[in-house]
Amino acid sequence: MSAPLDRLSLNQATTERWSLREAAGGCARHGIGWIGLWRDKVSELGVAASARLLRDAGLRVSGLCRGGWFPAASPAERRARIDDNLRAVEEAAGLGTDVLVLVCGPAPDRDLAGARAMVADGVAAVLEHAAACSVRLAVEPLHPMFAGDRSVIVTLAQALDLIERFPREHCGVVIDAYHVWWDPDLEAQVARAGGRILGYHVSDWLAPPPDVLLGRGLMGDGVIELRRLRGLVEAAGYTGPIEVEIFNQALRDRPGDEVLALVKERFVAVV
Amino acid sequence: MSAPLDRLSLNQATTERWSLREAAGGCARHGIGWIGLWRDKVSELGVAASARLLRDAGLRVSGLCRGGWFPAASPAERRARIDDNLRAVEEAAGLGTDVLVLVCGPAPDRDLAGARAMVADGVAAVLEHAAACSVRLAVEPLHPMFAGDRSVIVTLAQALDLIERFPREHCGVVIDAYHVWWDPDLEAQVARAGGRILGYHVSDWLAPPPDVLLGRGLMGDGVIELRRLRGLVEAAGYTGPIEVEIFNQALRDRPGDEVLALVKERFVAVV
Repeated sequence: MSAPLDRLSLNQATTERWSLREAAGGCARHGIGWIGLWRDKVSELGVAASARLLRDAGLRVSGLCRGGWFPAASPAERRARIDDNLRAVEEAAGLGTDVLVLVCGPAPDRDLAGARAMVADGVAAVLEHAAACSVRLAVEPLHPMFAGDRSVIVTLAQALDLIERFPREHCGVVIDAYHVWWDPDLEAQVARAGGRILGYHVSDWLAPPPDVLLGRGLMGDGVIELRRLRGLVEAAGYTGPIEVEIFNQALRDRPGDEVLALVKERFVAVV
Repeated sequence: MSAPLDRLSLNQATTERWSLREAAGGCARHGIGWIGLWRDKVSELGVAASARLLRDAGLRVSGLCRGGWFPAASPAERRARIDDNLRAVEEAAGLGTDVLVLVCGPAPDRDLAGARAMVADGVAAVLEHAAACSVRLAVEPLHPMFAGDRSVIVTLAQALDLIERFPREHCGVVIDAYHVWWDPDLEAQVARAGGRILGYHVSDWLAPPPDVLLGRGLMGDGVIELRRLRGLVEAAGYTGPIEVEIFNQALRDRPGDEVLALVKERFVAVV
């Protein structure tokens, strides 16, 4: 059964050339009720003006990308990263979402275990402020192909091991199909995530991928069993918005309205 | 402590433009005593002539790449893949190595679980002939970035779950640093592999990778803790040859003798 279109959220990375104002207009034209924001896009107008724009457009915010990026070589730099996360928490609250997506960051050197400890310390340091702002920290495990430059948190099991140290009211995970689809332990781990899933993102895995960063596919163009995975995520209790987040250069180069039409079509057909 | 140079094996993929004869000559010039073979390179001369060439050059064979590729859409095609593996077993024996590396193959459709079952069936179907030929099947888990087009076996834990169904005398794993370095469970799984490690391959993970297939780095140019990983592999009991297998276009475009000099230098310095 299709996911209902009222769960579709446009992650701004999909239509990366659009400003927030343009994306909000696109969502209005295509009847999309949710949007997933990026901080750099929000910064163009600022938080207050962005929030007003979204409210006027009747758009709800499924999450803000992104906090995280905790590991760093020096204590001063780690402190600066934490401060940036505290600001991101406030931005999320100001934008009317309670989900701050954390992309946890790479190691500053070759020490993965050390960097993973820095991630745990970073989440711990941001948690109280997040709770005070009624924002939940959503750890997103990234595909292991990003372990060297984007995230030392690379499996759902590992993300769950991390968040289970923290109160469930304030900390959970985002599951992105592109990042987790390959995992032999996926079914068990999605079930284990039950009650702590704060977001579900979709795109598709092209085989072979045309690019490391910008080679994601439109849903249906790749090999992920998207309907099955949504079933697992829903069985684990998540029935919130589904963000379409496609990092794909060719798609970014197309007119945004064409992209939204395609996204809606595929959302109904295969998500 | 450095790995001794007498454990260095040149995997032919590193110097891909070289024929087997050229690679054997290069190894002789650089005092490299082991070589990791590819079937397409062997086929240029045939098995018997290749074996003679290697014997005359005093080269030992650390393994043959590759069998596997078991999943296929039809029973006839799956049977053909198994037949090809039976031939690969005989080629390995004829070349004087008891290690046939298995790259298990992608799914013919979107069904990962089904494809994984086909892999298990394939290994089971080849095992008896391998045992009769005194060849061991070495399952190589590939990096999850290859789950869509090369291997549905993507973690060491999963490879071990697979091989543990089969007798340890005839079936083990190959550990390739590039494919497994990111794994949060690596230390425990390498220990678990004890006694069943049939090969250890090295290269490095560049961050970010310049290419999906041909973006591996020379050891020391990337982020893998190679010395630590070798320590884990040795603690698990493996002290055999260490294959340098670097899929890198820029390196392939350089003169092979320059590449071998660099490989030896880095092998001593960082492996």
